[in-house]
Amino acid sequence: MQLPYYIDLLGTLVFAVSGALAASDKNMYRDIFGVAFTGFVTAVGGGTLRDMILGVRPVWVADGNYLIVVTLGVLLALFFKYYFLKFRRTFFLFDTMGIALYTIVGVQKSLAFGVSPLAAIILGMFSAVMGGVIRDTLINEIPLIFRKEIYATACLSGAALFVLLKSLGVDDNVNAFSGVILIFMIRILSVKYKWTLPKVGYR
Amino acid sequence: MQLPYYIDLLGTLVFAVSGALAASDKNMYRDIFGVAFTGFVTAVGGGTLRDMILGVRPVWVADGNYLIVVTLGVLLALFFKYYFLKFRRTFFLFDTMGIALYTIVGVQKSLAFGVSPLAAIILGMFSAVMGGVIRDTLINEIPLIFRKEIYATACLSGAALFVLLKSLGVDDNVNAFSGVILIFMIRILSVKYKWTLPKVGYR
Amino acid sequence: MQLPYYIDLLGTLVFAVSGALAASDKNMYRDIFGVAFTGFVTAVGGGTLRDMILGVRPVWVADGNYLIVVTLGVLLALFFKYYFLKFRRTFFLFDTMGIALYTIVGVQKSLAFGVSPLAAIILGMFSAVMGGVIRDTLINEIPLIFRKEIYATACLSGAALFVLLKSLGVDDNVNAFSGVILIFMIRILSVKYKWTLPKVGYR
Repeated sequence: MQLPYYIDLLGTLVFAVSGALAASDKNMYRDIFGVAFTGFVTAVGGGTLRDMILGVRPVWVADGNYLIVVTLGVLLALFFKYYFLKFRRTFFLFDTMGIALYTIVGVQKSLAFGVSPLAAIILGMFSAVMGGVIRDTLINEIPLIFRKEIYATACLSGAALFVLLKSLGVDDNVNAFSGVILIFMIRILSVKYKWTLPKVGYR
Repeated sequence: MQLPYYIDLLGTLVFAVSGALAASDKNMYRDIFGVAFTGFVTAVGGGTLRDMILGVRPVWVADGNYLIVVTLGVLLALFFKYYFLKFRRTFFLFDTMGIALYTIVGVQKSLAFGVSPLAAIILGMFSAVMGGVIRDTLINEIPLIFRKEIYATACLSGAALFVLLKSLGVDDNVNAFSGVILIFMIRILSVKYKWTLPKVGYR
Repeated sequence: MQLPYYIDLLGTLVFAVSGALAASDKNMYRDIFGVAFTGFVTAVGGGTLRDMILGVRPVWVADGNYLIVVTLGVLLALFFKYYFLKFRRTFFLFDTMGIALYTIVGVQKSLAFGVSPLAAIILGMFSAVMGGVIRDTLINEIPLIFRKEIYATACLSGAALFVLLKSLGVDDNVNAFSGVILIFMIRILSVKYKWTLPKVGYR
């Protein structure tokens, strides 16, 4: 199962909204350009890094629809900020579905371009989280993936499950579905029950 | 009109000088390597990012002249710092001409490699401003493009004008000239009259 | 002399250990993911940037051994941290040998892909130091190469020596050996005698 085109666009929209909201929250990017730029980087940064490593042209460069969707996401964030904040839980579910889908799309694309299974797992995770990492680095913050509950690790787990099932010869539809669900579940449960990874006990 | 080779080199020189001056101003890169590295990143960072996204080899990698010009720019900044600071206004005009030229060069190159018009606008802006963004990120500052007057937005406007005129079938010389002038004018006027973009009124 | 495969893997191991140790020292990446991610970025970041600029696929993407070695390095750092800290001097020698080898490997690879001699010198230095620069940027610190004793400059010197000797027609084995030794010596001596580059006397 190649995840359909419109799902990829939907993920881009969700990430553009969440990136633009993050910028406005920090009160650092105070003008419209800053918010738009942040939404753009969050939405396309991870996939762009993955594609540059794979040696292929990022999808938003050739297909103008992605940039239209990013613009739409930024406008939504600007005009409906209070709505998004009010329905924070709904938005959290969207964002979680976004990283789950992006991860598996990233793994599939990486494998299709002939990378090793281990590299595909890492590049899948990159697709989902590196947009946020680049955004946080630009606004001079420790990237969220190092501060919050299990996040990138959920992506790595789902990506690893996909690669494992694929190596066992399981049908690709099942693999993709299983990977997405695993990421979704780990992320939801880790927030709900405040799971964290083992701390490294240095002093 | 492909902007001539020596204009590209001149832009590189101006950016290398301004990057090296920025480093010394912050007193963060205190040794010669730091100043040189900062000048280098400022001068070639934006074009390098654009070229990596386009999937072509950055121009300074194949053509040694660019690195010689960067070295020259760094030396100029080191030896004539007080001169540059004294003629700050002249230098500002040079820098503004630099971003205007870089933007249009970037749009032309991107279109020549077959990207969508929207992507060409963004990649044109990237060519001009991302060197400074990378520099500011390395020295742990909020990138200047998020802090100062209309800057990246001027580049986006000129790039958009170029793409628009081109789509209307206007002669490329006219397009390039119009785009450069628009960027130059917006930037100059926004500094003179302290124009800013609308703030996003979050609390 | 192409430096043998296992030496490249050994360099990757050393950098993964030192990256993971750096993370734990800062107490910023407190969980296992943060430490592993930092080790990974430190180990492969410089070579990845070089390869993206050269337009070739980074070696860890195709060859799974590199990621296994990174994982091993992170585990070593986690389990034998006190050992590494106790034998800090030994580790320093390893790290110095690491940057020396990485630099020359980077220069050789860059020249093999047809870049200009000046660009090869810079890309050689990038191979050795940019992993650490990316790591430091992510954890919101001024990159070490701007703060400590002669470091990147040692790499530039060795890379320049290699290119110079090669242009004189000297045997490649001799060039590589000379470059590595020069980097090693400059770095060791600059730490021992607290050499620094000339400061830029701005006020």
